[in-house]
Amino acid sequence: MIIMHHLRKSRAIFMTAFLEELGVDYELRLYDRNEVRRAPPELREVHPLGKSPVIEDQGMTIAESGAITTYLIDTYDTEHKFAPARDGGAEYFHYLQWLHYAEGSMGSPMLLNLLTRREDPKPPIVTGFTKGETALHLGYMEAALEGQDYILGNDFSGADVSCGYMANGAKQLKLLENYPNVDAYASRLTGRPAFQRAFGKTGG
Amino acid sequence: MIIMHHLRKSRAIFMTAFLEELGVDYELRLYDRNEVRRAPPELREVHPLGKSPVIEDQGMTIAESGAITTYLIDTYDTEHKFAPARDGGAEYFHYLQWLHYAEGSMGSPMLLNLLTRREDPKPPIVTGFTKGETALHLGYMEAALEGQDYILGNDFSGADVSCGYMANGAKQLKLLENYPNVDAYASRLTGRPAFQRAFGKTGG
Repeated sequence: MIIMHHLRKSRAIFMTAFLEELGVDYELRLYDRNEVRRAPPELREVHPLGKSPVIEDQGMTIAESGAITTYLIDTYDTEHKFAPARDGGAEYFHYLQWLHYAEGSMGSPMLLNLLTRREDPKPPIVTGFTKGETALHLGYMEAALEGQDYILGNDFSGADVSCGYMANGAKQLKLLENYPNVDAYASRLTGRPAFQRAFGKTGG
Repeated sequence: MIIMHHLRKSRAIFMTAFLEELGVDYELRLYDRNEVRRAPPELREVHPLGKSPVIEDQGMTIAESGAITTYLIDTYDTEHKFAPARDGGAEYFHYLQWLHYAEGSMGSPMLLNLLTRREDPKPPIVTGFTKGETALHLGYMEAALEGQDYILGNDFSGADVSCGYMANGAKQLKLLENYPNVDAYASRLTGRPAFQRAFGKTGG
């Protein structure tokens, strides 16, 4: 059975919600952040980076959200409900860009917003970078979501796992006043029954 | 023919080097950073994020380094020289984790080192995060490279495109004094004939 290593108050909630979307059996192992809000050392025994989400399945330990999502889809989504078939040409590579985009491109400015949220005054170079990049990425996602419910269209996909984490993070940081599509997207994702079940089982 | 949009002094050099590794024909379009060291607005006409590398091929425009690498391998590396076959089980997912790792996990602390390299004093929260995460990621890569030349073993792979950019960035930022394996890895990659040809054609 899949073992899901879930750190509370982290991006793990979106992966646990994805396990619920897939409808697979899994064993949850829950971790709390330590007193300085970092992942606890026990997670380093699971994977040397000591982060979450990490899954174990079929003798493998898999980290990195995009790799875990791909593994789960390849292994359990045999009907291609959550991603286009790999031979799908443009449709597949459109999906793949969004799969890489969230952690690879939007992740850094979102992290900078998080790290500097209580600094006053904000560090000048970081703030200069962060403001422009945040607007760029939220504007990009806002445009992509125009007239559609999810990042690939009107159906939830594996690309929404990481994109959802970023959108919801931006919502928590109160960055979405001018981005109604992203705001509605974050609410739509956290309102899904699978997310609610994951939240109920993990506490967030 | 593949069109490669290459911003000088960026991660694009590792993708152009990968095109050289693949031995495919491609047309180079070169861009210089503007007066504030950012990508020029012309790149926004290629892709809304206005970044590089971006490729165009077979009617598609593809951004995100991991997605571009995957596209190039799927399309042109038919002998699986640069990545395990997709049905390769553990070997494939080991590759996939490294493919996602560089931009998804190591990218943020490397960016923070870059952005704050001239700030004095360093912003406290950012520095607290950056120091620990930099040591974590360079230590992880150092251990992975023990006794092997490239990130997957003794052969260069698609996972070295982004991992190479991160390792070489750390070298440029003079962060590798205690990480001899990462330092040698960066030099090994930039010393490859393909990289040297890409450098010669682009100016970096």
